[in-house]
Amino acid sequence: LARRLHGIAPTIFSEMSALAARTGSVNLGQGFPDVDGPPEVIARAVEALGAGANQYAPGPGVPALRQAVARHQARHYGIELDPDTEVVVTTGATEGVAAALLGLLDPGDEVVLLEPSYDSYDAMVQMAGGVRRGVTLRAPDFRLDADALRAAVTPRTRLLLLNSPHNPTGTVLTRAELQVVADVALAHDLVVVTDEVYEHLVFDDHEHVPLATLPGMAKRTLTLSSAGKSWSFTGWKVGWATGPADLVGAVLAAKQWLTFTSGAPLQPAVAHALDHEPDFPRRLAADLQQRRDLLCAGLRGLGLDPRVPEGTYFALTDTAHLGWRDGLELCLALPERAGVVAVPLQGFYDDPEAGRHLVRWAFCKTTDVVTEGLARLGAADLTR
Amino acid sequence: LARRLHGIAPTIFSEMSALAARTGSVNLGQGFPDVDGPPEVIARAVEALGAGANQYAPGPGVPALRQAVARHQARHYGIELDPDTEVVVTTGATEGVAAALLGLLDPGDEVVLLEPSYDSYDAMVQMAGGVRRGVTLRAPDFRLDADALRAAVTPRTRLLLLNSPHNPTGTVLTRAELQVVADVALAHDLVVVTDEVYEHLVFDDHEHVPLATLPGMAKRTLTLSSAGKSWSFTGWKVGWATGPADLVGAVLAAKQWLTFTSGAPLQPAVAHALDHEPDFPRRLAADLQQRRDLLCAGLRGLGLDPRVPEGTYFALTDTAHLGWRDGLELCLALPERAGVVAVPLQGFYDDPEAGRHLVRWAFCKTTDVVTEGLARLGAADLTR
Ligand SMILES: CSCCC(=O)C(=O)O
Ligand SMILES: CSCCC(=O)C(=O)O
Repeated sequence: LARRLHGIAPTIFSEMSALAARTGSVNLGQGFPDVDGPPEVIARAVEALGAGANQYAPGPGVPALRQAVARHQARHYGIELDPDTEVVVTTGATEGVAAALLGLLDPGDEVVLLEPSYDSYDAMVQMAGGVRRGVTLRAPDFRLDADALRAAVTPRTRLLLLNSPHNPTGTVLTRAELQVVADVALAHDLVVVTDEVYEHLVFDDHEHVPLATLPGMAKRTLTLSSAGKSWSFTGWKVGWATGPADLVGAVLAAKQWLTFTSGAPLQPAVAHALDHEPDFPRRLAADLQQRRDLLCAGLRGLGLDPRVPEGTYFALTDTAHLGWRDGLELCLALPERAGVVAVPLQGFYDDPEAGRHLVRWAFCKTTDVVTEGLARLGAADLTR
Repeated sequence: LARRLHGIAPTIFSEMSALAARTGSVNLGQGFPDVDGPPEVIARAVEALGAGANQYAPGPGVPALRQAVARHQARHYGIELDPDTEVVVTTGATEGVAAALLGLLDPGDEVVLLEPSYDSYDAMVQMAGGVRRGVTLRAPDFRLDADALRAAVTPRTRLLLLNSPHNPTGTVLTRAELQVVADVALAHDLVVVTDEVYEHLVFDDHEHVPLATLPGMAKRTLTLSSAGKSWSFTGWKVGWATGPADLVGAVLAAKQWLTFTSGAPLQPAVAHALDHEPDFPRRLAADLQQRRDLLCAGLRGLGLDPRVPEGTYFALTDTAHLGWRDGLELCLALPERAGVVAVPLQGFYDDPEAGRHLVRWAFCKTTDVVTEGLARLGAADLTR
């Protein structure tokens, strides 16, 4: 195994979904819905399959999708993009992250990122030879600490990598917090890669503010998103990177060798989703908020006081009082104890102490599944 | 742009397909068929889309597809594989190459590869920090030079990367040539990554011999293939890597961060293709052979004496006598001169002199398209 992969564990999401399948557990681990997106979008994929969209899509993505992404950014955020040079289609936002880091980082370059950090970030920073500088979002409220962010920047910092809405904490960075990010980026002439795949899945009065809309940020922000979460097609793996041509070009330059292109018959369907199902994500968010509330109330009833998330698919709980060595030990015992799978967050921190007892629960499942998961947890003894 | 991408030009296939689209040219450049694969396979993708196969596939690929790949290798080649540890699904063979090189190469490691070499190989070796050692398949017969292969190996050689049937030359390595590869790999304890995407597209009496079937090679060979060429669904980007668990594990270890997974609704359809359309590739090869003959006869009639390929989608011609500076200059002029696009091979060699006048023509198009392309070439003045 190449050194760039040494010490990197397999993605916890795969591990936990495999565990759920093996044990017949209710899967509150990996973030994917169990109800698909709009039937009309599926119908368009069916149409594309029958209409010959089965050979290589253009490397940057089919024009209809790039145009639809540009329209989406204009409609929602007032961001104007040239679909030919400022939009590139990726194999989900995961490939966007991989291509951005391989395309922008040289060995030794430092990357400032939020902790707990989504697992592919750490892995890809290492694979690109970069060095992580974590800025911890601290329990119980998981807000951005402006001083910690400023302190994490060094002369070696090449870019900031962040996600908002933030997986796994559920924090939606406020405009004020994003302004701190922008100020740091502008002061140090840094690029920011921002993963906004949960852009539409925000709750209550929280508002998703794309970092690229802050003054001066458009030309230094590479924004990643995808159809997976917003339109409930996580398995299609159709995502996009948007921003200035130089940053989008770096993604394309790397991506062309990673997969070249993907999902030819799915890309036109996603274009249709963006153009013709613009309200689906908002309805999904409203619906998801009810399941969030169901899950959070249930966890609270079990003495697992959750952090009520502002966005995303996930709620966090601290499990220290249950007496397990760490969240991983608990999560490995959960299938047998309760027939439920959840995700331990330890691996999302550099410092293994930091998130030692944090566990993430997904509520992007049907009401029945969430209810069943809670019932199973309620019937089980969760203490060590 | 990161240094790992410096000096790497955009993939010539994208460039040339974009040129074809822009100029309304007959596209004899990028290798994709203009007739899709079996309708029954499309029907399975439609079924999967309707049956909820729209959320994340497991990271290693859906079990049905991994099992079908294992059955395919057993049926055709007598290779026995454990579908759980010795098969991983990739986003086409391109991701297989990327993940294999990122997963196996450390900076400074040398890779011996065949020249002319498929463009992603060079790019990915560089991106993985590797050093290329080319072994040239020389015109006019493009055979493997055993001495050159042996001479290319040094103490720093980490792996051999080859493809047979060979794109772009159309050479199908004989058992004797592959034995030379095996001998070198065994003598120097090397891993071989072998890209066999054209495994079923061989002509006349030529036989595709998987390198993994040679004595002693199974445990050091990572084989890459895909459904794109064999079943005419290049846009689906569903491929696989097979071999010993440690090598397949290295692919998975890298790939999980590149795309995580892809094509959830397409994977079951490809499983169906492998299991239930086993004869399609043979029929396709027979049909393709006729179009090869049509193209080669036509090129010969135009004084562009082709190398008659033993496999793949492509025929090569030397264009030196036409008086252009190089194949690229010719290919950039071809749309205007003739309304045809082809691919110059210069970029496929380390030494720009080596393939300076070689041009690749695709015959994986319909008889009508090949005929039209030839007619256009015949009506044009191709000399500088
Ligand atoms: C890419 S697999 C994981 C899906 C996801 O985003 C999550 O569970 O956090
Ligand atoms: C991955 S794009 C190119 C398709 C192909 O294999 C070729 O034209 O050689």
